[in-house]
Amino acid sequence: MIDVSTQQLTSTLSDGCAQTHAPGIPAHEHHRELEPHLESFPQPAISTQEALQRRLQQYPYQSSILRQQQPAQNLLSHSTPSDMASVPKHLNFITGNKNKLAEVQAILGGVIELRNQNVDLVEIQGTVEEVTLDKCRRAAEAVNGPVLVEDTCLCFKAMNDLPGPYIKWFMLALGPTQLHHMLDGFEDKSAQAVCTFAYCEGPGHEPVLFQGRTDGKLVASRGPTVFGWDSCFEYEGTTYAEMEKSEKNKISHRGKALDKLKEWLASNVQA
Amino acid sequence: MIDVSTQQLTSTLSDGCAQTHAPGIPAHEHHRELEPHLESFPQPAISTQEALQRRLQQYPYQSSILRQQQPAQNLLSHSTPSDMASVPKHLNFITGNKNKLAEVQAILGGVIELRNQNVDLVEIQGTVEEVTLDKCRRAAEAVNGPVLVEDTCLCFKAMNDLPGPYIKWFMLALGPTQLHHMLDGFEDKSAQAVCTFAYCEGPGHEPVLFQGRTDGKLVASRGPTVFGWDSCFEYEGTTYAEMEKSEKNKISHRGKALDKLKEWLASNVQA
Repeated sequence: MIDVSTQQLTSTLSDGCAQTHAPGIPAHEHHRELEPHLESFPQPAISTQEALQRRLQQYPYQSSILRQQQPAQNLLSHSTPSDMASVPKHLNFITGNKNKLAEVQAILGGVIELRNQNVDLVEIQGTVEEVTLDKCRRAAEAVNGPVLVEDTCLCFKAMNDLPGPYIKWFMLALGPTQLHHMLDGFEDKSAQAVCTFAYCEGPGHEPVLFQGRTDGKLVASRGPTVFGWDSCFEYEGTTYAEMEKSEKNKISHRGKALDKLKEWLASNVQA
Repeated sequence: MIDVSTQQLTSTLSDGCAQTHAPGIPAHEHHRELEPHLESFPQPAISTQEALQRRLQQYPYQSSILRQQQPAQNLLSHSTPSDMASVPKHLNFITGNKNKLAEVQAILGGVIELRNQNVDLVEIQGTVEEVTLDKCRRAAEAVNGPVLVEDTCLCFKAMNDLPGPYIKWFMLALGPTQLHHMLDGFEDKSAQAVCTFAYCEGPGHEPVLFQGRTDGKLVASRGPTVFGWDSCFEYEGTTYAEMEKSEKNKISHRGKALDKLKEWLASNVQA
């Protein structure tokens, strides 16, 4: 099994996703640098303004700031030389969700045969990309072969992109009808849905990421509440839950990520 | 390096902390069982009431419910036979926070010599206990010897004990002056501060946990804002930040955890 330290993760990310870290701050300094300010222990006194400045510079979920510099969907390219992986015709999608499997199977059907394997994997804390990369590496170790994994985030701008990868725990705690209350105390209701697929050829290989992002708003639940937070995420006046599936797939974070994945698979699957 | 799957974590926890899991649900089923309901994929339709019931039964942060059954501070005992570990006179405390090191060194000074080692460790997602146990195991692997680690959580009752182990990210995003807005949309402002120390004898050994919990309320910041969320956590009318240090140590989550750790060390340190 692989152990992934922050340092290792960072070296990996710096190949393809260095932009997800705050500029000028070596990413491996994040945990070390920030820890003193996180907990209930005495820390050197700094002004609120300075503290905010440091937080903004150092905070690892800086995508809302980065988005202004560069479109987020371009952060994860799938055309770098290191991505020229070999993909078998049969691929294991690691998920315990049969509906998810069916949906992804249907979309990728013409390109690849997706099989299912359910592996118990603990997820790490970190950025969207770190969480997915780590999960993918360990899944490849666990099945000792090529794997596909997926991770979904919901990022609130008012919370500097949190809950992000932790949204699943908040959904469990609050459910779709209460989730929007998290932003009651904040004027800015904007949210970004992020879907990240990762493919790894096998143990020791670097995963490749395919990410889709959709900007919207967190709203009081409208529409069926059976699809996670679909009823609380509004895109241009309509919640995901209120949309026709085909309409949603065109603009959704997952639709965008699957488009990239499908295109890449089409040119990389073994003949 | 050790890889810790949910399954492995669960077997460990079931020795000493089985109570932290919902009764009647095998803990290793949590991730698998819950995953289908977390994300934006079609799931079997169930009623809101049923969904809530399931969420409450399955949700891994069930300590607020458990607290009603049994005082939380008794959940983690330090007198079970498996805890009879051997503790050297010099012990590595894994932290990058010099102030934390100094404070813990001062409190444990008469009992043990605490040295510092700063190891970059990624934390996993999970319950307070899972996060600390995993961090402790990997720290022991990293330094190839005995280690002490610590983790601090802030749990909001209205969010079924979240942010919990993720509080550090929310503190970074919002800071002490904005943190209380997370509960603006909820009537219940009660919060619990949780401090968990873990000691591990070395690679392959089971860590021992020492936990302290203090019930309070999340409030608008009062007092100095230099000590993490101390200015937002009110205990019996006074925020941690407004208290004298000695007064705070008597009732604080960390004070309670350190009391247990100190007592245990005193009877386990090698003569």
